[in-house]
Amino acid sequence: MSNIADIAIKLFGNNNTCMCGGAHYICLNCEVCRAIDKDQVYNPEHGVASIIDATILKATATDADVTTLCNMANEHQTASVCINSHFIPLIKSILTGAVKSCTVINFPLGASSKEVIQAETQAVLDAGVDEVDMVQNIGALLAGDYDTSFESINGAAKLCIAKEALLKVIIETCYLNEEQLIISCLIAKKAGANFVKTSTGFGTAGATPENIALMRKVVGPKLGVKASGGIRTRAQALAMITSGASRIGASSVAPLL
Amino acid sequence: MSNIADIAIKLFGNNNTCMCGGAHYICLNCEVCRAIDKDQVYNPEHGVASIIDATILKATATDADVTTLCNMANEHQTASVCINSHFIPLIKSILTGAVKSCTVINFPLGASSKEVIQAETQAVLDAGVDEVDMVQNIGALLAGDYDTSFESINGAAKLCIAKEALLKVIIETCYLNEEQLIISCLIAKKAGANFVKTSTGFGTAGATPENIALMRKVVGPKLGVKASGGIRTRAQALAMITSGASRIGASSVAPLL
Repeated sequence: MSNIADIAIKLFGNNNTCMCGGAHYICLNCEVCRAIDKDQVYNPEHGVASIIDATILKATATDADVTTLCNMANEHQTASVCINSHFIPLIKSILTGAVKSCTVINFPLGASSKEVIQAETQAVLDAGVDEVDMVQNIGALLAGDYDTSFESINGAAKLCIAKEALLKVIIETCYLNEEQLIISCLIAKKAGANFVKTSTGFGTAGATPENIALMRKVVGPKLGVKASGGIRTRAQALAMITSGASRIGASSVAPLL
Repeated sequence: MSNIADIAIKLFGNNNTCMCGGAHYICLNCEVCRAIDKDQVYNPEHGVASIIDATILKATATDADVTTLCNMANEHQTASVCINSHFIPLIKSILTGAVKSCTVINFPLGASSKEVIQAETQAVLDAGVDEVDMVQNIGALLAGDYDTSFESINGAAKLCIAKEALLKVIIETCYLNEEQLIISCLIAKKAGANFVKTSTGFGTAGATPENIALMRKVVGPKLGVKASGGIRTRAQALAMITSGASRIGASSVAPLL
């Protein structure tokens, strides 16, 4: 395995020791320091439903499909319902209890400009969404343009922090090698993300326990790690949780309980 | 075939006779009347390259890939280069002659809110892009929510008109039946689009000569019709042109010449 600390030092210099338990060891000078936060890990007492983002993102989804999903989310009290931004007002009118509203930006291609991402983030926050799942700039990351990658996330993070909305950064693991995956997690953490997330569900592969374990190791216990893409059974969900996932994206809920 | 005029009357009332030659026959009271514009048809004297939007939109595209495409576009003097918004500054720095810059919004899922679409449109226009290819709201169209479909396009169209940028509306034919395709074209025309376009390239199918012929019939000669998705040979390109296409999206140029 690549040496996470060496990669972090190469990217960000040999700073103070980190206080948040990430395997980068050095302090990343994150947009928000989460060292004193409680650990972002699954609590079995709350049940699997409590960490599921019930998700429908396909192009052909209609109000009727989204309503069905919201009713399922309400019944099981999932963490959130995750939809494209057209449906934000609809889900906010249906969701009950602790179920949060979640939408996606720079999705699913991860190739919008910083300016588009900021404009999109502001628009969905103005619509009152609780959580934002954004794709990192995949092309910039692959080309080694880490400044653009950081700035894209940091711009969205600042807006989310101001509105107390949760930001999850989708690193789209299927297109990355191990070093690129580590770099993506470091950049997302430093830029102010609350979560790193594996997959859009539109790439060539979804979450794997191995990637979840690596992502959890990189970011440490204080950030969330979301497994998404292809999780359809309780066995899969438990494997992700065992590997370190604290949130799971899935289009159905009952089979995971 | 569905009766285009009947559908138009049902949607928009029995107005004056249209002056622009669309098979809707009634005037749609379009955002911009194009009745006195010249016909938007392929001119063989200009060659096929002159109507190609050289396109790369995949998630993993890098600066190097986009540069290669731009060099190809410059060599053949294509109509435009079409990329995700991250690459707008790059292509504007490379393109020469009459080759326009083109980007995509509400892409490829066609499920962003009106507010997100407007914010995204403004951001790409501020970046100086010449042409904008936007996906219509597919879920709203499928659910019969034509007001949202119209307003999504009209909001972007007003911004594009103010900046003299071209707006192409991708109706994503693969998810629509014939009546929905006709309705989509009517709404896009009324909302102020310059072009109707078949496909994102991320759906279940791309352009067909049959759909191009129907789209051309609906909108008449004064609007552009763009065929995109899966066009890789000269025979395919010529079939689209014969059916009425006035623009072609393709990732490669030489095989089409």
